[in-house]
Amino acid sequence: MKTTCYALLMSVLLLATQGCKQEEGPQTVPEASVSAASVDPLPSWTEGPTKQAILDFVEAVTTESSSSFVPVADRIATFDNDGNLWSEQPLYFQLQYALDRVKTMAPDHPEWQDQQPFKALMEGDMEALMAEGEAGLIKLVMASHAGMTTEEFNAAVKNWLQTARHPRFDRPYTDLVYQPMLELLSYLRDNGFTTFIVSGGGIDFMRPWTEAVYGIPPHQVVGSSIKTEFDYNEGNPVLRKLPEIDFIDDKAGKPVGIHKFIGKKPVFASGNSDGDLQMLQYTATNPHAFMLYLHHTDGDREWAYDRESHIGRLDKGLDEAEKNGWTVIDMKRDWKVIYPFQVSE
Amino acid sequence: MKTTCYALLMSVLLLATQGCKQEEGPQTVPEASVSAASVDPLPSWTEGPTKQAILDFVEAVTTESSSSFVPVADRIATFDNDGNLWSEQPLYFQLQYALDRVKTMAPDHPEWQDQQPFKALMEGDMEALMAEGEAGLIKLVMASHAGMTTEEFNAAVKNWLQTARHPRFDRPYTDLVYQPMLELLSYLRDNGFTTFIVSGGGIDFMRPWTEAVYGIPPHQVVGSSIKTEFDYNEGNPVLRKLPEIDFIDDKAGKPVGIHKFIGKKPVFASGNSDGDLQMLQYTATNPHAFMLYLHHTDGDREWAYDRESHIGRLDKGLDEAEKNGWTVIDMKRDWKVIYPFQVSE
Repeated sequence: MKTTCYALLMSVLLLATQGCKQEEGPQTVPEASVSAASVDPLPSWTEGPTKQAILDFVEAVTTESSSSFVPVADRIATFDNDGNLWSEQPLYFQLQYALDRVKTMAPDHPEWQDQQPFKALMEGDMEALMAEGEAGLIKLVMASHAGMTTEEFNAAVKNWLQTARHPRFDRPYTDLVYQPMLELLSYLRDNGFTTFIVSGGGIDFMRPWTEAVYGIPPHQVVGSSIKTEFDYNEGNPVLRKLPEIDFIDDKAGKPVGIHKFIGKKPVFASGNSDGDLQMLQYTATNPHAFMLYLHHTDGDREWAYDRESHIGRLDKGLDEAEKNGWTVIDMKRDWKVIYPFQVSE
Repeated sequence: MKTTCYALLMSVLLLATQGCKQEEGPQTVPEASVSAASVDPLPSWTEGPTKQAILDFVEAVTTESSSSFVPVADRIATFDNDGNLWSEQPLYFQLQYALDRVKTMAPDHPEWQDQQPFKALMEGDMEALMAEGEAGLIKLVMASHAGMTTEEFNAAVKNWLQTARHPRFDRPYTDLVYQPMLELLSYLRDNGFTTFIVSGGGIDFMRPWTEAVYGIPPHQVVGSSIKTEFDYNEGNPVLRKLPEIDFIDDKAGKPVGIHKFIGKKPVFASGNSDGDLQMLQYTATNPHAFMLYLHHTDGDREWAYDRESHIGRLDKGLDEAEKNGWTVIDMKRDWKVIYPFQVSE
């Protein structure tokens, strides 16, 4: 928890010091090989060793005569979400939701006008917000995520996704999913894999939209959570979200979350940060498993960051990938296109 | 937890006072309508209001022009396990596993010879075992469920299922699943439902066999759990099971477990005891939902018990079912056959 919250806090600082708006880089919109899509399951991936490694893995584990054959029931594929299936800059999207939500709720909470960190947020006083530290950040997250029914929270998330716009691209946040990863998810499912999200982000924040956006139903989403309690509510039972951490699905929590929610060891795991390292290490103990890291190398079309980043730091993971021969996606080199809205018709 | 453990404790008492062996009642082996199986999805169910209510529900929610139509993505069906998909007498099967496992482990634990409740169990001294109370029972459960890797536990459960025999039927415990419920599970899946187990029993105890026995994969099994921790284990990462409760999926914990693991409200819920009541009440808040209780009324072919039973007590649930018009299976009346091995060829 400490590290996760620290990362969130740092991302608030980043936002404060750099501002929301970033210079938009040149949009490279390659010609998508639409005509070849029927034969190429990964049309947005550049031909090369990364794409070939994925194709080779899938062929090996799905060929019955192969010594690497894996039965359908054991074809478990896990994907981190933030920075792996959608972008995570300049601020984890869920944290942006928390900040926006607190502002939306403020008129009903006049007491916040004199309470930190709410006062600082409302006044845009980032120095005062930072001074509240991790405890202040947790107050913002709990104020925006707890104290309501699960259905009220679902509705608030859906409403935010319909109305909020990403500061750099001026588009809904769910537009910022990675086209090549959508193709990879479909490709794996077409080959008998069951695809799961295993994210450090909030499970309740993801579930309202993952089915429509990724084709991943709520029960195949694993993430961090706060506790809920059953309330008879005078004959109309509801579940209420409590301001208390239940589970942190990050770092060593990811294998624990995989066991808790999935109950089988993955044979394919995909992540982009050191928070995914234990998931990949755990997966690697499965014979024939495939471990995939996404390296953010494209400062023009997306963002470039790795070892020193406060968001999505990828440091130990890069070393482990090289040491163990895991596949690393070089975003700039390996992806013809980043987002679905850039695919030319 | 308290109530669950109390029920377990009472079932130990029952075992001690009644003995393991029960008189085997006459086996009614009806002629299964094999020839009609292609048209009748529920051949082991007697024609009548219970079977008809199930057929009517499925037709209503799967007919697009119906005002009760439910999209495939929302066809979530949850089933309790003990006493609902398989038998639970004379002792919850998982508790029998715990007792057997402790005996198997005893040679490696000479210290147990002087420690309660182990000493009492080994000596078959039920009075002394009872004297250890709930705390003693928890020691037996933790000794048999924690202190090993998840893979070691899986292997031990699978081994037990292959070797242990139920005292009344002298068959593997997984033979004591209910044929009519297997048909119901298949029927719902054939109609676009996703079927889940939501049990007060241990999630890790069920997952090694639910896929083969019920067609329900591990990630669609919800249950009670103890904590696990990730251990690097000198470069061979494992998950170790800790002697600490993580989650109790019983009573008000069932809606919480449904939200935590499934993330959607069921439209069909099936149980057999007061431990399932909140699951059914929560499901009932979903429009068009179907609530099903199994009433154990067949002392000859299975067991007859309800309001006063220490195992699978069904008291408040019967009243609520009548008040709310929920469907109640009368096992004796509604099921032509109980177990798959009784189906005539």
